[in-house]
Amino acid sequence: VNQESSFLLQIGALETAHQKILREKLELDPLLPFHDRQLSTSENRIVQFFAPPGPLTARYEVIVEVDPYLGSLEEAVEVPVSELPPETLPFLYPSRYCPSDRLLQVADDEFGSLEPGYSRVTAICNWLYEKIRYTRGVSDAHTTALETYLGREGVCRDFAHLGIMFCRALNLPARFVSVYAYGLAQPDFHACFEVFLGNRWYLFDATRLAPQTGFLRLGSGRDAAEVSFATVFGVAELEGMETFVEVVPNEEGKSIEPEWTVQPISIA
Amino acid sequence: VNQESSFLLQIGALETAHQKILREKLELDPLLPFHDRQLSTSENRIVQFFAPPGPLTARYEVIVEVDPYLGSLEEAVEVPVSELPPETLPFLYPSRYCPSDRLLQVADDEFGSLEPGYSRVTAICNWLYEKIRYTRGVSDAHTTALETYLGREGVCRDFAHLGIMFCRALNLPARFVSVYAYGLAQPDFHACFEVFLGNRWYLFDATRLAPQTGFLRLGSGRDAAEVSFATVFGVAELEGMETFVEVVPNEEGKSIEPEWTVQPISIA
Amino acid sequence: VNQESSFLLQIGALETAHQKILREKLELDPLLPFHDRQLSTSENRIVQFFAPPGPLTARYEVIVEVDPYLGSLEEAVEVPVSELPPETLPFLYPSRYCPSDRLLQVADDEFGSLEPGYSRVTAICNWLYEKIRYTRGVSDAHTTALETYLGREGVCRDFAHLGIMFCRALNLPARFVSVYAYGLAQPDFHACFEVFLGNRWYLFDATRLAPQTGFLRLGSGRDAAEVSFATVFGVAELEGMETFVEVVPNEEGKSIEPEWTVQPISIA
Amino acid sequence: VNQESSFLLQIGALETAHQKILREKLELDPLLPFHDRQLSTSENRIVQFFAPPGPLTARYEVIVEVDPYLGSLEEAVEVPVSELPPETLPFLYPSRYCPSDRLLQVADDEFGSLEPGYSRVTAICNWLYEKIRYTRGVSDAHTTALETYLGREGVCRDFAHLGIMFCRALNLPARFVSVYAYGLAQPDFHACFEVFLGNRWYLFDATRLAPQTGFLRLGSGRDAAEVSFATVFGVAELEGMETFVEVVPNEEGKSIEPEWTVQPISIA
Repeated sequence: VNQESSFLLQIGALETAHQKILREKLELDPLLPFHDRQLSTSENRIVQFFAPPGPLTARYEVIVEVDPYLGSLEEAVEVPVSELPPETLPFLYPSRYCPSDRLLQVADDEFGSLEPGYSRVTAICNWLYEKIRYTRGVSDAHTTALETYLGREGVCRDFAHLGIMFCRALNLPARFVSVYAYGLAQPDFHACFEVFLGNRWYLFDATRLAPQTGFLRLGSGRDAAEVSFATVFGVAELEGMETFVEVVPNEEGKSIEPEWTVQPISIA
Repeated sequence: VNQESSFLLQIGALETAHQKILREKLELDPLLPFHDRQLSTSENRIVQFFAPPGPLTARYEVIVEVDPYLGSLEEAVEVPVSELPPETLPFLYPSRYCPSDRLLQVADDEFGSLEPGYSRVTAICNWLYEKIRYTRGVSDAHTTALETYLGREGVCRDFAHLGIMFCRALNLPARFVSVYAYGLAQPDFHACFEVFLGNRWYLFDATRLAPQTGFLRLGSGRDAAEVSFATVFGVAELEGMETFVEVVPNEEGKSIEPEWTVQPISIA
Repeated sequence: VNQESSFLLQIGALETAHQKILREKLELDPLLPFHDRQLSTSENRIVQFFAPPGPLTARYEVIVEVDPYLGSLEEAVEVPVSELPPETLPFLYPSRYCPSDRLLQVADDEFGSLEPGYSRVTAICNWLYEKIRYTRGVSDAHTTALETYLGREGVCRDFAHLGIMFCRALNLPARFVSVYAYGLAQPDFHACFEVFLGNRWYLFDATRLAPQTGFLRLGSGRDAAEVSFATVFGVAELEGMETFVEVVPNEEGKSIEPEWTVQPISIA
Repeated sequence: VNQESSFLLQIGALETAHQKILREKLELDPLLPFHDRQLSTSENRIVQFFAPPGPLTARYEVIVEVDPYLGSLEEAVEVPVSELPPETLPFLYPSRYCPSDRLLQVADDEFGSLEPGYSRVTAICNWLYEKIRYTRGVSDAHTTALETYLGREGVCRDFAHLGIMFCRALNLPARFVSVYAYGLAQPDFHACFEVFLGNRWYLFDATRLAPQTGFLRLGSGRDAAEVSFATVFGVAELEGMETFVEVVPNEEGKSIEPEWTVQPISIA
């Protein structure tokens, strides 16, 4: 930390219907007072604190029992906008990195005539997987989904943004989700997206990089602008970050490996 | 309505600490069932319905007692990000029309060295008033605050977006507010913005087009994407819109004309 | 003319191998001195003058014998960049309205695997005709081909820009051409594009709005920025413009109607 | 070279009124046939060749006698657009990286009321020097002058683009110039810009990084799109580049060090 700075961290696991926090510990070194807050507006958990100049380490450990909901194609149907629950409406609108108003016709040309519902979102994910190359270093903190659509490459964040943009352009509420992903080549933060179908938010990951049942939910928002793992208001440099994700045996001593699934899955 | 369409209307007055709905009536012709919903996420009220093809009229009448909060410079101070209430945090981030991440240095060059607090936001409003020409027809539904900053002209919505963008770039939570404004050359919908200072959201209107105590709050959001007076999901054409705002005598028979003020004012 | 202004007009027919000016007259009212200049850099003809405040009328009449070159698929082949004539090289680069560097992968995905040559450019034109809706009023003087690609609508200028952008992204020299078009619903200025194949610039018009042998060449350039029919440096308003194009009988008294063709055609 | 590729190199010194090539040598290894071409359209010299897969080295050596023109403020005056020589007109228009049509009002606000002529362009350079931080790594091959204006940082290419954009917005013909610069911390390619005043193109370098009389002209164009030192049409990777610039004693054995100047200077 080069100058006095405020920090917002989104690195803490959420307690939800599908993940139960068994044990957790957040340590700041030096010891600093912090707020650990739940944002009702977007179901995020934000750790908020102020740090003086000097070295700073944040260390977070958590053991979580993850139990995703696995649904059926029959229930994951599209809901007319006039019947959507009010809390899903904000996720219909364009946002910083997903300016869906700019791509309405493209979305309609590509996906408008497909069967509505879960399979249509799957078609979007397939398009992303086939057309967008997973490439590091071509996108940065200013990159929008339009640029990904034009440039045809990016990382998980860009895949999620473009998927969200297509969904919103088709009048489907869609949001950005930040997770820890077990099963990546290197366990790490990962980004995917959720679409509201039937009566819940279903998870989609067009990168196909890790099995979906191994995702640990951190937070969700309109796009990455709202779900950054760290936002610094001041001047600080990141010297390094290490992330470990591993499968822990359950009470009965069984280690259950995450799995790939083509079933509708929800962790919201 | 050319094809079956879903509608989201944001034309209803909010019931808040500073405005009391005395009487209201919303009529759709033809008679259609609708939901009248409060979005906790952004303190908006949304009327949500589905309409078949054919002519459609929405008529809304409301009598509201408006009683703005008038504060002092002493209380309207800037709050460090580490101490902001959690519900204000989403308004620090860039949004569709206010990509504040793109203009950090400009905001710092222009306003960074000014005294923090209410007077700094006033300086932003003065800048907007002096540098941006109020011009109809140069901006549209895709126009961002960057384009307004570059083009130096726009309407109330553009003034609000640019004000919000500057504030967020300075780490001040800022949001878009939609109102009915009494005192415009033609009473109409109007857009302004709010900044969180001290412990409340203060109102700012850089256009100087109407007295602030005559504003009737409709809703607020990250930017205009979330506070459109009508969003149509389908195919429909707007044939016309008429808006009337007038001062109604109170119970004692007195008509109190809205006034201009330079005091910190809040209607949130 | 509201204030003293300089004008650049590009309304004069070019004398080329394929069009012979039989008679022409340019009148300015009031009578003002002007330069009538040929820009070697882009084969444009520019009328350059200075006008005082007051009404201004420019009237141009020309009779031109048009004799397009009709070639064969065999000769309209792609030329390796290393063998392109030097004067075609500037038309490989991105320009104001055709930022081809932003769309390389899209162009390659869509057209990269097609047979090189005239038929590949025809495929681009077919794509444009099928995917882009001809719509007035959605584009303006700032609209780039990226926006047309995203928005999927525009006018002749936008069709030309997107065609040029695709061609350059495939390493084909391409340029914007301004013409008078006989055979439009209303005879008018029209925009199309040219691609260098074999040893000449071939004409392409993806709008399919008028028969190509009825085009009268005005000028060409990297994009519309260089081939505007009027550029005003000062303050002036266009009160109206009338354009007539008609077929005139030749010396033998025969009127030859313009025709549609699928043959490679060149008027450069 | 990973696949067969065409190359365009702009690394050769120009022979102009102000620089005389005494000796030069261009070697390609492997030995490949090449064209060494002068583009009349923009006074560029382009080396054009085709290379098979495999390692490729281009080595260029030149000894040039540089003799810049040093003019006076009296002659470096602004020319009305109606009297500009035709070859300067293309440099009035917006281009890929200098979309001057987007910033007209800003340019007018900042510089419109200043005394026309050389001192106005100097004021633009001073603005650039004071407001834009010289920073590597924030801009790339897609960065336009709008982004530099917004982000307030960049390298020599970005300084030049923004200077050009301001000048064109004020109706001054301006172009991008590529040089070898003696006197940089590390002698290297360098970018600056030229503005047409009086009857010649004057040189401006807002970075203040090297003495102007030590610039060796390579080429000029609307912007960097046209004056890249190497454009590859195919697939190749740059493994390294070394540049040396040194002062060589003249015939009389004298070494004349380049100098800084505030006089109008031209090397075109």
